[in-house]
Amino acid sequence: MPIVQIELLEGRTLEQKRSLVEKVTQAIIESTGAAPETVSIIIRDMPKENYAKAGKLASDK
Amino acid sequence: MPIVQIELLEGRTLEQKRSLVEKVTQAIIESTGAAPETVSIIIRDMPKENYAKAGKLASDK
Amino acid sequence: MPIVQIELLEGRTLEQKRSLVEKVTQAIIESTGAAPETVSIIIRDMPKENYAKAGKLASDK
Amino acid sequence: MPIVQIELLEGRTLEQKRSLVEKVTQAIIESTGAAPETVSIIIRDMPKENYAKAGKLASDK
Amino acid sequence: MPIVQIELLEGRTLEQKRSLVEKVTQAIIESTGAAPETVSIIIRDMPKENYAKAGKLASDK
Amino acid sequence: MPIVQIELLEGRTLEQKRSLVEKVTQAIIESTGAAPETVSIIIRDMPKENYAKAGKLASDK
Repeated sequence: MPIVQIELLEGRTLEQKRSLVEKVTQAIIESTGAAPETVSIIIRDMPKENYAKAGKLASDK
Repeated sequence: MPIVQIELLEGRTLEQKRSLVEKVTQAIIESTGAAPETVSIIIRDMPKENYAKAGKLASDK
Repeated sequence: MPIVQIELLEGRTLEQKRSLVEKVTQAIIESTGAAPETVSIIIRDMPKENYAKAGKLASDK
Repeated sequence: MPIVQIELLEGRTLEQKRSLVEKVTQAIIESTGAAPETVSIIIRDMPKENYAKAGKLASDK
Repeated sequence: MPIVQIELLEGRTLEQKRSLVEKVTQAIIESTGAAPETVSIIIRDMPKENYAKAGKLASDK
Repeated sequence: MPIVQIELLEGRTLEQKRSLVEKVTQAIIESTGAAPETVSIIIRDMPKENYAKAGKLASDK
């Protein structure tokens, strides 16, 4: 029943997302013993103006 | 004070969302006794390339 | 594939949670047409000192 | 290591977001003693049809 | 309608949380113009074994 | 800046969590090119009475 939410800065390609969900699912299966079909992953693409570190928007860096 | 976050694959109509928040709010009120005006719901529409099950993107199925 | 996250102030009984997930799942099925086995729900119990409205902790009210 | 997620109705300007992350980061530093560079903030813009209060979509009010 | 979720390493005092929600609410009001009573904040305390940076648990540092 | 949230049914050992964050971080680096020190992971342990699938609590199965 692992449910994973991943926030990324926007701009990842479909190929990168495909690879991401394959590898993250594999990582979860190997470390927790969960069955593959129980692993759900949600990706969220963040515009650069919607992410900040140390009080500064990524779009201002 | 119930706060609800719902992730759905994109493509739901306004009418479906209207019905969704009415019925989910009703379900919460009935089962927990919360007052209607304390129930907040956030809906998030997921593109098919942003959801995966068993290591496979929904857009690849 | 609907994934639901529900934050509640702690203190709900097992019976209330059981009723909550039955009714919320039913509400989602009816309004979106999703198949029952695709609906996942996560409940999170909040201590009163971990929830605030209008700048005031629920434990201070 | 504070990680903050903020849901807002869409329509905030870049200037409002810039001010938001500066002030919220400052608020966290002052109240918890966290170092500035450890504070991450994610903003999510909600369309009005994706937020409901008391069972009613914000777009219907 | 701003809804804020804040993840903190566990160990903050009640006084720190009280200050946190006051100051963060104030920061949101000032930068977005939201009315105070529309601002909800959820705090989540993370055990050190439930947070990782660069692939290492905080409890292992 | 990838930020990952993982919900697991409670009962994972410290060793499993250590392995989980190492492997998931590695998976993200390989597929997106993110730098290791930018990857944050939050794990949340769910009691079985706080997770439901198809309208049924995990604790009732």
